[in-house]
Amino acid sequence: MITLSLSVSDIFFYYFPEMITVKKLLILFIAGITGCSQHYHSVALPNNPEWIDLSHSYDSATLYWPNNIKGFEHITEAEGNTPFGYYSSYRFCTPEHGGTHLDAPIHFAENKLTVDQIPLSSLTGEAVMIDVSHHVLADRDYQVGVQDIENWEKDYGRIPENTIILFRTGYGQFYPDREKYFGTQKTGAAAIPELHFPGISPAATQWLVENRNIKALGLDTPSLDYGQSQEFTTHRILLGRNKPGFENLANLDRLPAKGIYIVALPMKIAKSSGAPLRIIATLKSS
Amino acid sequence: MITLSLSVSDIFFYYFPEMITVKKLLILFIAGITGCSQHYHSVALPNNPEWIDLSHSYDSATLYWPNNIKGFEHITEAEGNTPFGYYSSYRFCTPEHGGTHLDAPIHFAENKLTVDQIPLSSLTGEAVMIDVSHHVLADRDYQVGVQDIENWEKDYGRIPENTIILFRTGYGQFYPDREKYFGTQKTGAAAIPELHFPGISPAATQWLVENRNIKALGLDTPSLDYGQSQEFTTHRILLGRNKPGFENLANLDRLPAKGIYIVALPMKIAKSSGAPLRIIATLKSS
Ligand SMILES: [Zn+2]
Ligand SMILES: [Zn+2]
Repeated sequence: MITLSLSVSDIFFYYFPEMITVKKLLILFIAGITGCSQHYHSVALPNNPEWIDLSHSYDSATLYWPNNIKGFEHITEAEGNTPFGYYSSYRFCTPEHGGTHLDAPIHFAENKLTVDQIPLSSLTGEAVMIDVSHHVLADRDYQVGVQDIENWEKDYGRIPENTIILFRTGYGQFYPDREKYFGTQKTGAAAIPELHFPGISPAATQWLVENRNIKALGLDTPSLDYGQSQEFTTHRILLGRNKPGFENLANLDRLPAKGIYIVALPMKIAKSSGAPLRIIATLKSS
Repeated sequence: MITLSLSVSDIFFYYFPEMITVKKLLILFIAGITGCSQHYHSVALPNNPEWIDLSHSYDSATLYWPNNIKGFEHITEAEGNTPFGYYSSYRFCTPEHGGTHLDAPIHFAENKLTVDQIPLSSLTGEAVMIDVSHHVLADRDYQVGVQDIENWEKDYGRIPENTIILFRTGYGQFYPDREKYFGTQKTGAAAIPELHFPGISPAATQWLVENRNIKALGLDTPSLDYGQSQEFTTHRILLGRNKPGFENLANLDRLPAKGIYIVALPMKIAKSSGAPLRIIATLKSS
């Protein structure tokens, strides 16, 4: 209902009834303003979005879990001139989990979704960026807690349902320096006990899936669980609910705390537990 | 500038000067309508877009150019139960060009962009879908001509600058049946002279880059050039201008002729000539 107080009295319209049209136009004007503003809120993605790339490139420096003996291999098939001009072509091999990549639910949860089965609605949507870098950079073994999320909500409001949660630990700045990023330069089985990098605590993950029905989780470290984890409980909680994880994200420092729209597109590998991920973000108009 | 003809004459306002306010409100109303409608056109992406997947999955049936001896290889690293629960992980090998993939400019043009160098602005944006399936399905050697584009423009209007052009040949429905899709079941060098599938003529490509300054080209066949091409002239024209190509697209039958917004995200492989592509579309509100 629109309530309208006109400064021109109804007595005026009594004597000049044809001016009722003007009053109607005024009502239309108010309705137009209201409609326009409602429209704005339901159509907040810019028409020609500028996208921010949150993905690292794949090359010989790409970081994989220390037990991966082989990393990214790029093999030349053709490179040079032909009778018709230049031509180049390559092939490549890679573990599913390394670089900026997606963890599919089946990675840690039997019978759950493989990469190709994850619906696009779980890979796209609104996101928030929770910056915990201040205390995490001072403690390589930090696990993001419920308190960190509650603090964020105090500043920015309650996280809506179906939000993608991105944690910025600040460790992304060290990628691809293995020692600074993983906490050890070692590779192979000997490296595992020496992994020291932050992650998301099982308690915070449980809280997010139970109380905020989040869509996905991502961060700028090698794993959802912190380096010292042996049971990968955060993975099991998140993936067990058929929600994907995004690891080794780049450029989270370029995002604001909220008003983010994410498109996260993994290579569509059938029956896979993970895949290289190209993930981009744009900012919604406020 | 807003030109406004009021049905109420200026003489009226001469005698009732306080009513000037009403006239001002009317002007505001018209301006509001105009502003709102401009706003609508500049914010035409839905807030919560539904995305359509234009990508085939990668698996052992994925189609590669016949000279690729090895196709997609998916290698199990772990699959089963651990003391802490289920865990699976794989690695994979693939040629860059096969399945739904991107051709980077350097594939056929020396010193041009590699996949990781292509800006996101060249991979996202407005698209049109030109359906040529009617005559193409009747002629495996069909090359899309300038006339096909002119016919489309007669129906739907001039293609704006920076548009991504998608051609639907209808051959996407045959994927991954090698014989129906490529025109021959043979593989290896012997298959090359027997390739029969449609493509985009060099003349049409030249016309699009010169007269419409297009952003990218894509289609539902194995190659921008038709199967009988030996010089790959269409590739050379498009990629030579640093514009990418999208091949082996899926689900083009689910797109309207216009009002499409595309996000095409290749795996970000440094120095690569092509890459697996996850490409999705949403429809703009009209
Ligand atoms: Zn992973
Ligand atoms: Zn190609």
